Amino acid sequence: MSAVSWNRLIRFIPKSSCQTSASIKALIGQPVNADQDVGLASRAGEEVRVEVYEGSSILEPGKPSGKIETLERLLSPLTQSEVGSIRCIGLNYVNHAKEAGLALPPVPVLFIKPETALADPYPSPTIIPHSTLAKDRDSTDYEAELCVVIGKTAKDVQEKDALEYVLGYTAANDVSNRYLQFEQSQWCFSKGFDGSCPIGPCIVSQNLIPDVSKLHMRGIKNGKVMQDSGIDDLIFSVSKIVSFLSKGTTLRPGTIIITGTPAGVGGMRQPTEFMTHGDEFAVELLPHIGTLVTQFEHQKVDSSSL
Amino acid sequence: MSAVSWNRLIRFIPKSSCQTSASIKALIGQPVNADQDVGLASRAGEEVRVEVYEGSSILEPGKPSGKIETLERLLSPLTQSEVGSIRCIGLNYVNHAKEAGLALPPVPVLFIKPETALADPYPSPTIIPHSTLAKDRDSTDYEAELCVVIGKTAKDVQEKDALEYVLGYTAANDVSNRYLQFEQSQWCFSKGFDGSCPIGPCIVSQNLIPDVSKLHMRGIKNGKVMQDSGIDDLIFSVSKIVSFLSKGTTLRPGTIIITGTPAGVGGMRQPTEFMTHGDEFAVELLPHIGTLVTQFEHQKVDSSSL
Repeated sequence: MSAVSWNRLIRFIPKSSCQTSASIKALIGQPVNADQDVGLASRAGEEVRVEVYEGSSILEPGKPSGKIETLERLLSPLTQSEVGSIRCIGLNYVNHAKEAGLALPPVPVLFIKPETALADPYPSPTIIPHSTLAKDRDSTDYEAELCVVIGKTAKDVQEKDALEYVLGYTAANDVSNRYLQFEQSQWCFSKGFDGSCPIGPCIVSQNLIPDVSKLHMRGIKNGKVMQDSGIDDLIFSVSKIVSFLSKGTTLRPGTIIITGTPAGVGGMRQPTEFMTHGDEFAVELLPHIGTLVTQFEHQKVDSSSL
Repeated sequence: MSAVSWNRLIRFIPKSSCQTSASIKALIGQPVNADQDVGLASRAGEEVRVEVYEGSSILEPGKPSGKIETLERLLSPLTQSEVGSIRCIGLNYVNHAKEAGLALPPVPVLFIKPETALADPYPSPTIIPHSTLAKDRDSTDYEAELCVVIGKTAKDVQEKDALEYVLGYTAANDVSNRYLQFEQSQWCFSKGFDGSCPIGPCIVSQNLIPDVSKLHMRGIKNGKVMQDSGIDDLIFSVSKIVSFLSKGTTLRPGTIIITGTPAGVGGMRQPTEFMTHGDEFAVELLPHIGTLVTQFEHQKVDSSSL
């Protein structure tokens, strides 16, 4: 996959689209300033200039069109229909397994979020469902994660060949409702609500990240660092995960795999620190990928319908 | 949803399509003989005549076109992209919980199969992946299930309104690899292989099934009845499941929910009875739905790639 002609791609709404009466259209493009953290710049309202590509999907970006647009709104790099079922690996950092007091798993532990969980970065909020409030108390947690994007159909792929099927990487937040996860011992439901899988800000190709284990990730809640780990702490490497998940199973282009979270989640803290209305969580993945910012809001409820 | 103008719809390849040089195209239609079990007839090579509808999707079937076609090959009523992430309820029959020696769950237990697991009825086989053979021994099990098809976008739906969002019902086989499920304690991986979710033979609207709890289901392996239960043994009703799964979560039209299996699975038998190369399993759901037949084959492997 090293033959791709781009390094970093985003999906976005351009300012120009919002100034016309025509329907608003998402574009694909590469940020002009290679050093700019697109997620942070967008959050701060700074100008982000983007070289527009001809295609309408990061899976088929086409060629640079020669046009430069200014970013109005950042979108998830892939759409819900492009990603399909979202593969998620549980308990995949040594430091998180220690924090949870759990033995290292012998094989990757897979759970799946529905594609409806996929969400855009800031300013699109993640809504905390009213039904997840346990006795009106928050229990929604953050989980900073590396997200792998499959670029080529993979099935029964061997570990040594697995990276050939990877298009690139981005950041994700595996938003998790701890009350439902542990009271009812199930992951797909407690981690599958609408908005529970923001990804972004951009997809970075393997041109820039030949060795993903050298990346460093931080999870930052309202400016305070909560998670801080090298990707080299992964129990199962990206190659191992892609090979494992492809056993007997087709991974289509656009499939995303979120690869587990390091120590420091809110539910393991004393006292616990859950997300509440107005909180902001940033997943910083450096170098190259940048920062995925997500703001949380409580669901507005019509009391008559409860 | 009772306003739909059809009772039973199938997706199929017509004989006429196979007799021309043009590309083979799937059609939507209603079997002409209302009493015919389309799954059994197709398996037996009997003639199935179908009144073709104008649309290309069961979600938007359009009107009857006035044309009658003869069935060549039965397809899953919905496509992989139409269903998206496949919702599955675990442990939802009283008689199966007893057989497994497990307490009844307090809420529905959700796991998810990727859309790539969706498969056509016979003659399309379900391939048993080589990687699931534990020490070269089969451990792939059948699970006869009722499959609910969502017809209208549902989110935060109350139990009393839930059936308004249901388009209809079909049968499913929740093909499960017991070795991987129990040795590694995970469901999404062990039940998510390509071909592990055949559905069909047809979708029956609520016109014909106003009370789904009155249906009766049998699971039949190579002609021998292995599972035999009323749908009234469900721990959580269809209304309860749809309401529960819609909490904070959008269920799109086309979403399918497979609702758990009754007692009699192969892994709980003494001795165990797993599916092997050439075996056939039939999920019979009566009245109206008919029989979903699936043939199993071992994956052909190139020994050099193992």
